[in-house]
Amino acid sequence: MVNYPNGSKKNWNTPVSSYGGRGMELEKEISITNQYYLEDDRAVIHKKPTPVTIVKVDYPMRSAAKITEAYFKLPSTTDYNGIYRGKYIDFEAKECAINTSFPLKSIHAHQIKHLDDVLRHGAIAFVIVRFTKLEITYFVEAKRMIEYIRNTDRSSIPYSWFEENGHRIPFNYLKPVDYLQIVDELYFKE
Amino acid sequence: MVNYPNGSKKNWNTPVSSYGGRGMELEKEISITNQYYLEDDRAVIHKKPTPVTIVKVDYPMRSAAKITEAYFKLPSTTDYNGIYRGKYIDFEAKECAINTSFPLKSIHAHQIKHLDDVLRHGAIAFVIVRFTKLEITYFVEAKRMIEYIRNTDRSSIPYSWFEENGHRIPFNYLKPVDYLQIVDELYFKE
Repeated sequence: MVNYPNGSKKNWNTPVSSYGGRGMELEKEISITNQYYLEDDRAVIHKKPTPVTIVKVDYPMRSAAKITEAYFKLPSTTDYNGIYRGKYIDFEAKECAINTSFPLKSIHAHQIKHLDDVLRHGAIAFVIVRFTKLEITYFVEAKRMIEYIRNTDRSSIPYSWFEENGHRIPFNYLKPVDYLQIVDELYFKE
Repeated sequence: MVNYPNGSKKNWNTPVSSYGGRGMELEKEISITNQYYLEDDRAVIHKKPTPVTIVKVDYPMRSAAKITEAYFKLPSTTDYNGIYRGKYIDFEAKECAINTSFPLKSIHAHQIKHLDDVLRHGAIAFVIVRFTKLEITYFVEAKRMIEYIRNTDRSSIPYSWFEENGHRIPFNYLKPVDYLQIVDELYFKE
């Protein structure tokens, strides 16, 4: 287990992390990486909170309102955004347990629309896909993935497509998902 | 009551909006404004979900996980961010019920640090403050507010400071808090 740099209090073990167990290892590693970027003053990129519809709140004490009924909501945007080298950064991250293809149902239509929207306004937008059994993590430019999705009848993207169109994200103990290295190569190469 | 443009389904009346009742009128109006900007393809700016620590989830059916215990968490960033004219936008919005000053405890130290962080990386960052009884809404550049906060012993910012340093945000039925008009004047004037 990789330790959090500087003993940050960001809590991996809050129960929300175990909800469904989906994509959580990748999420933790991106969280470590983002924290590293933040402390290194390299970028300010955060995960958005899980969207929840709150139905009922008890106020046993003013200072500790307790939510007693709430439901998970479909996100209307991607999970991550922020700023790097003056540019707006926006991305989604997904784990994939299948070795041969990435099911398109993993990404909601709302999220594809959102990525398309921000691209049109000048964002650096991408999707991080980890094939968990292969232990390989790809960086895919959002415009390429959107293009593929809009021109296919398939319900998944074959693994070979990632080999051809994706960029493998290097692993590093301090920055387990060092995606800004790929951003530098693709968008800031002189 | 101003109606939502294009019959959007964004639900103002979800119970979360009534939580505490703090700053909600302004929040609704910014939501209408952001939705207008989005549909007009002018900017992509969203409010982040309310951060919640989820403790207990029941799964009566796979499709309807029910959260039965959760707590509100202090936000580590501001509430709003997105992209406009290729620039990263970041802001916080606060209502103030006092006519004469804005209490500094309304903005958490984390949020001030966050605004300072994103500014250093090239963001357009600001705070929207509405004096509810006066029905006046100010746009304040984050760098000015941070400067004030770091050089004062006061626990509030006097109203006169907003008159001198803020910019009044015009009201408009389609865009009740048309803050991008101020952004254009301050950051994109040729």
